[in-house]
Amino acid sequence: MLIHLSSWPEIDARLKSGAALSKTVVVPIGSNEQHGPTGLLGTDWLCPEIIAHAAERGDDSLIVAPTFNIGMAQHHLAFPGTISLRPSTFMSAITDWVSSLARHGFERIYFLNGHGGNVATIEATFAEIYAEWSFVEERPPFVLKLRNWWDLPGVHRLCEEIFPVGHGAHATPSEIAVTQAAYPDHIKIADYSPKIAPMGPIRDALDYRARFPDGRIGSDPAQASPEKGQTIIDASVPALLKDVADFAAEVLP
Amino acid sequence: MLIHLSSWPEIDARLKSGAALSKTVVVPIGSNEQHGPTGLLGTDWLCPEIIAHAAERGDDSLIVAPTFNIGMAQHHLAFPGTISLRPSTFMSAITDWVSSLARHGFERIYFLNGHGGNVATIEATFAEIYAEWSFVEERPPFVLKLRNWWDLPGVHRLCEEIFPVGHGAHATPSEIAVTQAAYPDHIKIADYSPKIAPMGPIRDALDYRARFPDGRIGSDPAQASPEKGQTIIDASVPALLKDVADFAAEVLP
Amino acid sequence: MLIHLSSWPEIDARLKSGAALSKTVVVPIGSNEQHGPTGLLGTDWLCPEIIAHAAERGDDSLIVAPTFNIGMAQHHLAFPGTISLRPSTFMSAITDWVSSLARHGFERIYFLNGHGGNVATIEATFAEIYAEWSFVEERPPFVLKLRNWWDLPGVHRLCEEIFPVGHGAHATPSEIAVTQAAYPDHIKIADYSPKIAPMGPIRDALDYRARFPDGRIGSDPAQASPEKGQTIIDASVPALLKDVADFAAEVLP
Amino acid sequence: MLIHLSSWPEIDARLKSGAALSKTVVVPIGSNEQHGPTGLLGTDWLCPEIIAHAAERGDDSLIVAPTFNIGMAQHHLAFPGTISLRPSTFMSAITDWVSSLARHGFERIYFLNGHGGNVATIEATFAEIYAEWSFVEERPPFVLKLRNWWDLPGVHRLCEEIFPVGHGAHATPSEIAVTQAAYPDHIKIADYSPKIAPMGPIRDALDYRARFPDGRIGSDPAQASPEKGQTIIDASVPALLKDVADFAAEVLP
Amino acid sequence: MLIHLSSWPEIDARLKSGAALSKTVVVPIGSNEQHGPTGLLGTDWLCPEIIAHAAERGDDSLIVAPTFNIGMAQHHLAFPGTISLRPSTFMSAITDWVSSLARHGFERIYFLNGHGGNVATIEATFAEIYAEWSFVEERPPFVLKLRNWWDLPGVHRLCEEIFPVGHGAHATPSEIAVTQAAYPDHIKIADYSPKIAPMGPIRDALDYRARFPDGRIGSDPAQASPEKGQTIIDASVPALLKDVADFAAEVLP
Amino acid sequence: MLIHLSSWPEIDARLKSGAALSKTVVVPIGSNEQHGPTGLLGTDWLCPEIIAHAAERGDDSLIVAPTFNIGMAQHHLAFPGTISLRPSTFMSAITDWVSSLARHGFERIYFLNGHGGNVATIEATFAEIYAEWSFVEERPPFVLKLRNWWDLPGVHRLCEEIFPVGHGAHATPSEIAVTQAAYPDHIKIADYSPKIAPMGPIRDALDYRARFPDGRIGSDPAQASPEKGQTIIDASVPALLKDVADFAAEVLP
Repeated sequence: MLIHLSSWPEIDARLKSGAALSKTVVVPIGSNEQHGPTGLLGTDWLCPEIIAHAAERGDDSLIVAPTFNIGMAQHHLAFPGTISLRPSTFMSAITDWVSSLARHGFERIYFLNGHGGNVATIEATFAEIYAEWSFVEERPPFVLKLRNWWDLPGVHRLCEEIFPVGHGAHATPSEIAVTQAAYPDHIKIADYSPKIAPMGPIRDALDYRARFPDGRIGSDPAQASPEKGQTIIDASVPALLKDVADFAAEVLP
Repeated sequence: MLIHLSSWPEIDARLKSGAALSKTVVVPIGSNEQHGPTGLLGTDWLCPEIIAHAAERGDDSLIVAPTFNIGMAQHHLAFPGTISLRPSTFMSAITDWVSSLARHGFERIYFLNGHGGNVATIEATFAEIYAEWSFVEERPPFVLKLRNWWDLPGVHRLCEEIFPVGHGAHATPSEIAVTQAAYPDHIKIADYSPKIAPMGPIRDALDYRARFPDGRIGSDPAQASPEKGQTIIDASVPALLKDVADFAAEVLP
Repeated sequence: MLIHLSSWPEIDARLKSGAALSKTVVVPIGSNEQHGPTGLLGTDWLCPEIIAHAAERGDDSLIVAPTFNIGMAQHHLAFPGTISLRPSTFMSAITDWVSSLARHGFERIYFLNGHGGNVATIEATFAEIYAEWSFVEERPPFVLKLRNWWDLPGVHRLCEEIFPVGHGAHATPSEIAVTQAAYPDHIKIADYSPKIAPMGPIRDALDYRARFPDGRIGSDPAQASPEKGQTIIDASVPALLKDVADFAAEVLP
Repeated sequence: MLIHLSSWPEIDARLKSGAALSKTVVVPIGSNEQHGPTGLLGTDWLCPEIIAHAAERGDDSLIVAPTFNIGMAQHHLAFPGTISLRPSTFMSAITDWVSSLARHGFERIYFLNGHGGNVATIEATFAEIYAEWSFVEERPPFVLKLRNWWDLPGVHRLCEEIFPVGHGAHATPSEIAVTQAAYPDHIKIADYSPKIAPMGPIRDALDYRARFPDGRIGSDPAQASPEKGQTIIDASVPALLKDVADFAAEVLP
Repeated sequence: MLIHLSSWPEIDARLKSGAALSKTVVVPIGSNEQHGPTGLLGTDWLCPEIIAHAAERGDDSLIVAPTFNIGMAQHHLAFPGTISLRPSTFMSAITDWVSSLARHGFERIYFLNGHGGNVATIEATFAEIYAEWSFVEERPPFVLKLRNWWDLPGVHRLCEEIFPVGHGAHATPSEIAVTQAAYPDHIKIADYSPKIAPMGPIRDALDYRARFPDGRIGSDPAQASPEKGQTIIDASVPALLKDVADFAAEVLP
Repeated sequence: MLIHLSSWPEIDARLKSGAALSKTVVVPIGSNEQHGPTGLLGTDWLCPEIIAHAAERGDDSLIVAPTFNIGMAQHHLAFPGTISLRPSTFMSAITDWVSSLARHGFERIYFLNGHGGNVATIEATFAEIYAEWSFVEERPPFVLKLRNWWDLPGVHRLCEEIFPVGHGAHATPSEIAVTQAAYPDHIKIADYSPKIAPMGPIRDALDYRARFPDGRIGSDPAQASPEKGQTIIDASVPALLKDVADFAAEVLP
């Protein structure tokens, strides 16, 4: 069930249904940022959306929120097309999403993340949200979980098997392959030089562009193909369904 | 050109191309909120996205950003599936989008809005953004514009012609028709009672639900059809292209 | 009853009196900003104050708060004497006024506004205030209303009758006439060139000054006179009393 | 010169005139809060306004801004009619006033304060404003000064001479006398019990009301009279003019 | 009992013990800022820590929190080693400390302050904290108190007796003597010129450095000695214990 | 060189000296939070302070700032003595520390962290700080680095060798041993039950206390001893000096 293609009575009925995942919601979350010479700017929000929507098509009991498509990408701002929230803005926005979803009775809120650069801020936000309750000695009526799609059980290993060399850390062949599978009309080609991009620390935008001139970090995206992307999606879907089901079933102390 | 399906070198090349609309970007912006018994929760962000993407398919010179899908919908929070930002969060997020896009050299930023409830906050945000420059006696390197899709030249009149009675103010047949045209597999049916929903002021969420029990304001969405929706889209596309072109061509004093 | 010229026991007694308007308060709100070559910088806060105080003199049951005299005027900052809050500051301040007045038991808070540029931010603030309640499924113990003084029933039509040409949008002859009636010792004269000022969009302060070199938008303030101002005041007073009474008597769902 | 009764060209001309006080502005600032059984709720913003306007009438070279009428009065909120900003809001608002006035070229901004409870927050605000410059190794183009009207040279001593007993700390006979002189039609009478109110610490609103049941702290306002108030005003006016002139003439290192 | 050298069960037991000071906590608070040619940068947080820890060694019933070591020192930023919070940050941090301590059941929170420049912001913070309760007509479950160590009963007089000339306002011989007593290995020597530093107003950092080239205000720190410092500490300890005991024993209305 | 025990001329001279580490500063940063039945509440800020001060004693070229002793510990708030900042406050405070240190010319700012729960917020803060520069296409004049003391090269392996079983994730024997070595008079003893604490997710404070009743996560602190702590310190000191030297020497692109 995709929230944005449902009516409110449909969501209402599901919430009251007592069905297995009826009080759990998955929020695809990512970033709109450069992904090297060929990667789509939307890669990081498209990947979790692709996987979550595929899972929902297979199992309608999964409730999927609209995609949170702009995250924390300040370090990519020297590349056109990148859109970033400041971490503080990102925190406020996530907080409001959680307040909205919890208000309706969602008790488990699962963020399926597509951008490593989001992790710190999302975790800080969870702490900010929990702190409101911790300071006043109350328990929140919801539990939050963050899962990067590549950390779904078995997925990272699969990606490394498919791309044993040049997987890298940004504009990876696996994420680009996932978008190629879903958007085959938008596959782009480039001569990468060097074939495998350099590694290094991530700081501000100009430092980033100086270190990583074409935007990639440690990756060789030329290895991506729609077929490999589909393989990754096919493995991610059951892993997501299992992971969400476990989260929904978790008994709280 | 859809930013999220482009690579950064493609955006970079376009920005440097000197083409007519190369420094103008359209941001579809809306809200995820209840739209009565049958309207999609995503209606208000889907409509501007549908129209902007249709325009871009017809004229690739139009640059379209990812859709800003969550807006100011606090009054709809008593209906499940609604997700709202607080106005203050909304303002911070829009500000960061503008900072990002302006950083890349976009000089005209056009928000195509799908939610009347967003208007006040977006305008307040424009003032907040401009104020940073006004206080220090500098001119911003960009100009901002807000346009509701139904206020595109000719569109509102068309909607009233198609739906002379029961157009109303929320969950209107015109916006629902637009989503029906784009998402024909998600058309929903209900017995509306009363046929035309009541009118009234908009305040907090519980007040809203008490006044408008099924979520509609003044509308009779039963009149919507995919065909009527397509008619509206077909009229909106050239109106948008013309409006954006005028904005891009506007000479500043 | 003017709050600032009353003692707390007087306000206390009134709040407990059960009288018709005893739980309703009118807050004159405006802006201190340039009003063309002859308009007073205080015009936008003086007008609602003049009207509200005149109404209170006629009907002591009206409770009038001190005047909120600085609003959102970033676009006028290129003209000396303008004082503006950022929209975010304006929102915080209005919120605190509302919290204070509601704390005392005022259940209807009516903002009589004198500045069009305030409208978006005031409405965004109402949403921000209501959101606190909407997120937690509670009803606020108060209702908020915004009314521009020129939108009081009958007033705008009267202004257009008196000034059928060159009323314009800023530094209008009607608002200047109102201040002339109240402050006859501070009437100023200038040669306006052009007689009727240009129209155009409102953006940042330097853009504004370039478009509207003497500060007026579309107006010919030379038509103003104290007598015309008094006529407008005389029409506004009963309209305000009626409007506030209706608001106070409104039954909530 | 009262800014709100001037036009922008008048302010502009004065700023460019090179006259003695042409780049100095006085901002009357106070609070709207309970002042015991008989004191006006507006006492703390009326007093500095009364004194500043009287000074301006005597010497038009004094430029006086509109009155900042709502300050930090959280401790008085248990008494109806009190309106308070949170300190953080107060700080933002003062900051915006300063930004606006400095933008026009005012180099010396003098706050004439009427509320002891404002002092800490105003001083914290000055530090917040200066900090923006201190962190980046630049000098601000303006200097800020806070002066309580009763601390104008000679005034406090005069008040103590007139009211040697029962002057107290809140709802003092001196401030009430000042308002009686200016608003003789709004003088109120009560039987004070006890004659001199108790002293004690200031904390939250309910604590305050429990300690000071009628709102006064240490004062016997029955001693106030319009004549005594006029005496205080007459002494304050030259003291203010001298103090502002000294501030304007101060040579910076 | 020093919190940071205790375990949570020890704090828990004390809080539940019913002992005299078991619900009172002392927070040493200061600033890290220049203190003239010879003063330690840590002087202002070391002094209250030294006195509070000495008191705790003498009377274990005193509960002492970790030292809040960075305060409001924007005016000292032109001198290397100074670390300052903006007042707004300082306010947020103090608020969180109070929320944490109050959450555990501390009902009296006593800030022993070592920096005059902190006073306004700490007081504004108290008002900010209390305001949350005042707006909603509730009493906070805690009481806050600010005490500068030199204002402990008898201490200021003692300092003036020891240093009748050249005590001054910043980098005073008394505070430097206190640190000399505690950190005799870090005593520094300089030729002061002039012997007694000038006095003047405190504004931004560059203004400060221009007025007070070596950082001192009105002081002659050459008079400091470890012995004099010990004398001051010895007088401060019983004064602190008495002051805290009085605060803990204060009956609320 | 400990900043707080230095004078500003000493810091000034060092900054201008051109010495190897003269523009690099180490900030010990941690948290004040429960550490199980026997761990000191200050453990997480004492450990980095202990190691950094030990390093500074061995090599005076190391410049060490005062310890940032309160961090993000909302999940520990159900245990008395814990003091936590909200993540948003923590971010503001770190930002101000960085602004202060960078203002003086420190070009490399190294945070030696003692609390895993701080990591996400510190990293989010770095992004917040960098974003200010990234949005405006400028490079910051400083570089930031976060290092947990147990992640210093070789240290984590050593800890695991010393405590191959029951090292756990909170209240670990290694951190407790470090504090025992430094504060042997404050070693506490308890019967742990179970010997090794459970593992689990970290959420809000009440959830935490329900999962981890005595506060430990996965650890057996009974294994700690002052001797083992000294071993860890002795290994950490050269690792820190090497790590800081590498950071200081890093050539930026």
